[in-house]
Amino acid sequence: MKKHNFSAGPCVLPKSVMEQAAAAVLNFDDGLSLLEISHRSKPFVDVMENARSLALELLGLEGKGYKALFLQGGASTQFLMVALNLLEKRAGYLNSGTWADKAIKEAKIYDDIYEVASSKSANYNYIPKGYDIPEDYDYFHCTSNNTIFGTQMKSFPNSPVPLVCDMSSDIFSRQLDFSKFDLIYAGAQKNMGPAGTTLVVVKEEILGKVSRQIPSMMDYKTHISKGSMFNTPPVFAVYVSMLTLEWLKNLGGIKAIEEENEKKARLIYSEIDLNPLFKGFAAKEDRSLMNATFTLENENLKETFDAMVREAGINGINGHRSVGGYRASMYNALTLDSVKALVEVMSELESKA
Amino acid sequence: MKKHNFSAGPCVLPKSVMEQAAAAVLNFDDGLSLLEISHRSKPFVDVMENARSLALELLGLEGKGYKALFLQGGASTQFLMVALNLLEKRAGYLNSGTWADKAIKEAKIYDDIYEVASSKSANYNYIPKGYDIPEDYDYFHCTSNNTIFGTQMKSFPNSPVPLVCDMSSDIFSRQLDFSKFDLIYAGAQKNMGPAGTTLVVVKEEILGKVSRQIPSMMDYKTHISKGSMFNTPPVFAVYVSMLTLEWLKNLGGIKAIEEENEKKARLIYSEIDLNPLFKGFAAKEDRSLMNATFTLENENLKETFDAMVREAGINGINGHRSVGGYRASMYNALTLDSVKALVEVMSELESKA
Repeated sequence: MKKHNFSAGPCVLPKSVMEQAAAAVLNFDDGLSLLEISHRSKPFVDVMENARSLALELLGLEGKGYKALFLQGGASTQFLMVALNLLEKRAGYLNSGTWADKAIKEAKIYDDIYEVASSKSANYNYIPKGYDIPEDYDYFHCTSNNTIFGTQMKSFPNSPVPLVCDMSSDIFSRQLDFSKFDLIYAGAQKNMGPAGTTLVVVKEEILGKVSRQIPSMMDYKTHISKGSMFNTPPVFAVYVSMLTLEWLKNLGGIKAIEEENEKKARLIYSEIDLNPLFKGFAAKEDRSLMNATFTLENENLKETFDAMVREAGINGINGHRSVGGYRASMYNALTLDSVKALVEVMSELESKA
Repeated sequence: MKKHNFSAGPCVLPKSVMEQAAAAVLNFDDGLSLLEISHRSKPFVDVMENARSLALELLGLEGKGYKALFLQGGASTQFLMVALNLLEKRAGYLNSGTWADKAIKEAKIYDDIYEVASSKSANYNYIPKGYDIPEDYDYFHCTSNNTIFGTQMKSFPNSPVPLVCDMSSDIFSRQLDFSKFDLIYAGAQKNMGPAGTTLVVVKEEILGKVSRQIPSMMDYKTHISKGSMFNTPPVFAVYVSMLTLEWLKNLGGIKAIEEENEKKARLIYSEIDLNPLFKGFAAKEDRSLMNATFTLENENLKETFDAMVREAGINGINGHRSVGGYRASMYNALTLDSVKALVEVMSELESKA
């Protein structure tokens, strides 16, 4: 039976990517596995360069002063690196979810952090709007998509200071003017690849302006100067990310996948709104194209619904404990068919109930 | 033709491990790929727990107050984490190679570092000995094996302060009393798995004694409290490490592999010593079981030798630029047959010359 994998991340990747990845583990270059080759060998240096330039190309940032890096440690390490590299006196953060909150906590170790706005008291069910960003801040930090709560920023402020964005859960999923941002970071394990690498896209001109001595591994300049190979990179994760970016490019890039993502989102949200058994969690205007969060109006139906979901081969729709209910994550590689399968089960429940 | 992969790391892994890894990329659990499952799912939580306990079991450290963690960022990130977690006033470092030197450089950002001894002026061709470790140091740091130079510590000091060791290039390769050490770290990509994860084995009682606030991702206590899953771990690299540790356990553990490693080393070093065309780089008493470094006495033979090496399917024996010549890396998964193939070419060169 076909599996429909709605996992919140790590998540479904294109089937062709899985097949190429498996083949490379057995034989990548001249009989050697991808896992046993030197990261300094030409074939892998080519992979790294290709992955870096594909990332910039897909974001429309080639030739605009940006560098792409494939680092380790996840977005959680970026919470720290952003502050170490950019925070001199004071920075502004938008508190729109659990991860934004964690980013604030880490940056506070280094200096003064000001929450320009927060939706924490509403359990983050909307994106705060209408705030000001003072001109004397070192940077402004926001989170484009909040996986746990199913909210997504539909527009971004015109920031008078460098704009930093955690795009872990929606990078490469929709068209944006990415040149508005000075630093974008994203853990690979949603739209880009397997867990184990983090994409950082940074405008070089914003670096080198803080007075502290930054440890080598935490310094973006170190990694830029070494072509993202200061130390041994996570070879497998970078290779699979490259394959996924190639897949996206061949599909027609972000424009093409955005159309698919909009179709998938329209389908699930219209079911949530029309089916009286379900209720959406996030404010309608802030609904995420990536993660749809919803609950059952009648908890007594939970057992029946869960069994039907399992029977349909649907996987990974349990909501995060801080929201409860359900979460359907619809990253780039999840097909419209999978969303149809879920919506079918939801409407079947209505006809049964 | 069979390939003989002497790469210095990432390096050869057992064939059965490659096959299992490739299979898991296609189907790990109930039709889902290892790359698309949640790291919070039971099958992966089991992998992580299994990998952590195998590491302690193979090192003979179970039930002795140690925790094993699978982190990201390589040994280079450990240079920083060790200092952040343990350095309050002053620490002692043994400068036995390029990586030791880098560890010193990173730690110096945080406080006073004292080089107890160094072989830098001799291009690190021996392991410094006969130094003292003052009792008022926060810890003593050493590097068990120096990949680039082919030297290896044969004994370790009785340290009056916590003993920290970078074992990236020889962990799991020889029997040691690992309970002498308070913190051991090792990038996976030599004897443990693919690039992308770093094993940290730490005695819990040495933590929590510094006054600084440690960023969450840099704090060993964070990772211990979350069972090495504070954030999304590098799923694939941890899985392949678990497979490699299982392979080692089934082989008979460190005792069994040490015998193999000694056979391989005896074979290559005896050829280096007996064949007048070659000269060993490292001091004899400090020769590494993992990396044999040697040069040609007559550089004119280089082209011939390189061609013969290629023809024999031998890969990855070019020396590091700071030593030149050749380096045969003989990690756990490299077979005795591969060393025989190399030695055969070396002796064939002698008969030709």
